[in-house]
Amino acid sequence: MNVSIFLIGTELVRGIIQDKHTMFLTSKLTSMGYAVRRCVIIPDDGSVKEEIERAVPDSDVILLTGGLGPTSDDITREVVASLAGVPLEKNTQVWNRLYDKIGDRIYGANEVQTLFPKGFTVIDNPLGTAAGFSGFLKRDRAEADGGGVLIFCMPGPPREMQPMFINTVEPALADYIGRNNTGTDEYSVFLLAEARLEDLCRQVKLVNGLDGVSWGTRFQDCKISLYVNGENAGERRLFAEKLRAIAGKGLIADGCTEAVQILVNTLREKNYLVSTAESATSGLLAKLLTDIPGSSAWYWGGVNSYSADAKIKMLSVNEKEIKEHGMVTLECAKEMAEGVLRISGADLGVSITGIAGPSGEEEGKPLGTVCIGCASVKKNGEGASSDGADCEAVMVKMSHHTRESGRRRFAVIALILANFYLLGVPLIDIVSTWNYI
Amino acid sequence: MNVSIFLIGTELVRGIIQDKHTMFLTSKLTSMGYAVRRCVIIPDDGSVKEEIERAVPDSDVILLTGGLGPTSDDITREVVASLAGVPLEKNTQVWNRLYDKIGDRIYGANEVQTLFPKGFTVIDNPLGTAAGFSGFLKRDRAEADGGGVLIFCMPGPPREMQPMFINTVEPALADYIGRNNTGTDEYSVFLLAEARLEDLCRQVKLVNGLDGVSWGTRFQDCKISLYVNGENAGERRLFAEKLRAIAGKGLIADGCTEAVQILVNTLREKNYLVSTAESATSGLLAKLLTDIPGSSAWYWGGVNSYSADAKIKMLSVNEKEIKEHGMVTLECAKEMAEGVLRISGADLGVSITGIAGPSGEEEGKPLGTVCIGCASVKKNGEGASSDGADCEAVMVKMSHHTRESGRRRFAVIALILANFYLLGVPLIDIVSTWNYI
Repeated sequence: MNVSIFLIGTELVRGIIQDKHTMFLTSKLTSMGYAVRRCVIIPDDGSVKEEIERAVPDSDVILLTGGLGPTSDDITREVVASLAGVPLEKNTQVWNRLYDKIGDRIYGANEVQTLFPKGFTVIDNPLGTAAGFSGFLKRDRAEADGGGVLIFCMPGPPREMQPMFINTVEPALADYIGRNNTGTDEYSVFLLAEARLEDLCRQVKLVNGLDGVSWGTRFQDCKISLYVNGENAGERRLFAEKLRAIAGKGLIADGCTEAVQILVNTLREKNYLVSTAESATSGLLAKLLTDIPGSSAWYWGGVNSYSADAKIKMLSVNEKEIKEHGMVTLECAKEMAEGVLRISGADLGVSITGIAGPSGEEEGKPLGTVCIGCASVKKNGEGASSDGADCEAVMVKMSHHTRESGRRRFAVIALILANFYLLGVPLIDIVSTWNYI
Repeated sequence: MNVSIFLIGTELVRGIIQDKHTMFLTSKLTSMGYAVRRCVIIPDDGSVKEEIERAVPDSDVILLTGGLGPTSDDITREVVASLAGVPLEKNTQVWNRLYDKIGDRIYGANEVQTLFPKGFTVIDNPLGTAAGFSGFLKRDRAEADGGGVLIFCMPGPPREMQPMFINTVEPALADYIGRNNTGTDEYSVFLLAEARLEDLCRQVKLVNGLDGVSWGTRFQDCKISLYVNGENAGERRLFAEKLRAIAGKGLIADGCTEAVQILVNTLREKNYLVSTAESATSGLLAKLLTDIPGSSAWYWGGVNSYSADAKIKMLSVNEKEIKEHGMVTLECAKEMAEGVLRISGADLGVSITGIAGPSGEEEGKPLGTVCIGCASVKKNGEGASSDGADCEAVMVKMSHHTRESGRRRFAVIALILANFYLLGVPLIDIVSTWNYI
């Protein structure tokens, strides 16, 4: 089964953006048993029709991304209709869904996004305004009654294309090539680097002789989605179990979830409000906790105590302590968590103070060092402070990262640890198992 | 001048290695004034000849990487010789250099790497065993005496290809195209939806008869990059000027920048520290202000006063006022900005309180309504409060958005307005020009 891939986007051939589709698509196609004949990157200049026509004779499947936007250079839908020899027609369901999303703006340039080649199947795109579609291009009259080249058209942005591929196109392609008897389990992996996760997966497969298991990953902002494939559900589960054991506690969650969602679930169960005190991440933890609609049910508010002055004035962190030992200490993390708990009167206070870089390392505290504090009046453990609140803090040292990925991972560490704190698990028992972050 | 690029490598179309050539080559070609018609990634399966043949009629230049190795599937040199209608012949200089490098091993498979199409120019490769070469492919008999398609063949590994391109191919291509006579200006567009920007661009082109101007856009998290193309620099400038006039004040910035960078530049010029008080965006503004390294030079810290209780306890916002008029009011935005200014002692306080959705609309305040407040003791305008701080607040109503894009746009609005506030421009004079956000 031969596949031709067409990536349409002027930015791609002007050196403005990096192509993220080729490797993603070709690795998945290869693992399903397809042979990629060519991957062609072309501008939005109208040449797409001629380019696809050339590929029709020697392709069984064509994948196409981009050119589904609302602008005049987005001609994919017309070109595919023309190649299929059918007119474009309005899809009422898509029109209604788009109207719900963008309102009266639909009467402008976006309306073209509700048109699809007649007889084609529409593929929903919950993350954008461009739905995808699939159908057959006839190679000659002999194929008029069925068959031809199966074509899938998907939006260009990776954050829309990748979920569409995984949820709809990949299962359809597996079916088309006759590999429909394999199963896939999804996991959400936190804090591990993608290359490290790949190494661990290989190790688990090799050591446990799990030859029937394969995997794919998808990197996102705050997690990696891990898809474990294989015919035998028991083998897939064993693979995940072994992987979880060596990766570290709390780093691999079942299904498609986020670290913030896991904490929010616990907060909702207990009917708790959380407050935050952030230094290195300065607002990122608060933003994550309020990305989800309805967040006033679990988020009280908090402070971004970025400067030393902010820590002292807003959280009453001990000035002498900061001067003597710096701001990335267990003591500072504790005082921040206790401080915000005191101000807020919330049920849980969470603090983050760390060194995201690119500069600012201290002796014994390389870039990537972070201290997390958790405080609550609802617990009365050993660490209870004078005003009756329990408080715990731990230090974590992460390996290589950028300022951006470092800050994101600091926030994820805080989310994971805050959840364990609420569940009564000592934080040190968790972070001591994190050898690979 | 049209360019076709061919990247040969089975690993590239099996998802094993990431293509690093496309972006590198296309950005350099674009800046020289070449138009990339296509970039084709193909396996080492012998299909290269057919693929190149297709590109000869519509290309002025062909760049090819890979397939120059010593193994039997490395057929680039034979294919190019065949397309040029010349035999392969041994290059003695290359043979001698390679012998110096690998000794008697040259009598094995590597010997083929000393053969080149007759009449072609050899390009030295100090970093590997595969030298490159360049020459002309004739399109027809009329070109027999000169001209044709200029082709460059380079090795596949980026560490060998990139220096070869920079040292030899790029200067030759710059020479070949002569003077670059088309230009591109880049702008950064804030708050407008992509489809809306497209509509406005079309309108400006049509109304002003700017037929020589075209444009491209690239959507990013907090802005759209707009590229204005055309041979005439005056026409390009006029297009941008007219677009700026109808889009609204402060929404189109020169060059590649971000709203946060514009505010940070002003803060650094004045040597000011900013503090933030956020409700709807809860930490996003603080995060943006600290994404850039060195942010302790301009960011003091701030509060995420998400709940009413947080606004009252942390910022002393008037409880009665909230109960009577809600939290999305000019008064509340003012009190938040003044409150955080008072706590921090910073030079500027910025507040955001709005309705991001998906629910929570109030009468006269649809989803997308936001109030922004700015306060400073360094100004003494009419709005000066009892404790000597100047304070200004405005309300903005945005059209359709999601929770995520709404929160992002609220933060961008605050960044743009805070900058105008520091420049002494009344905020109402700015937002009254925003008809399209």
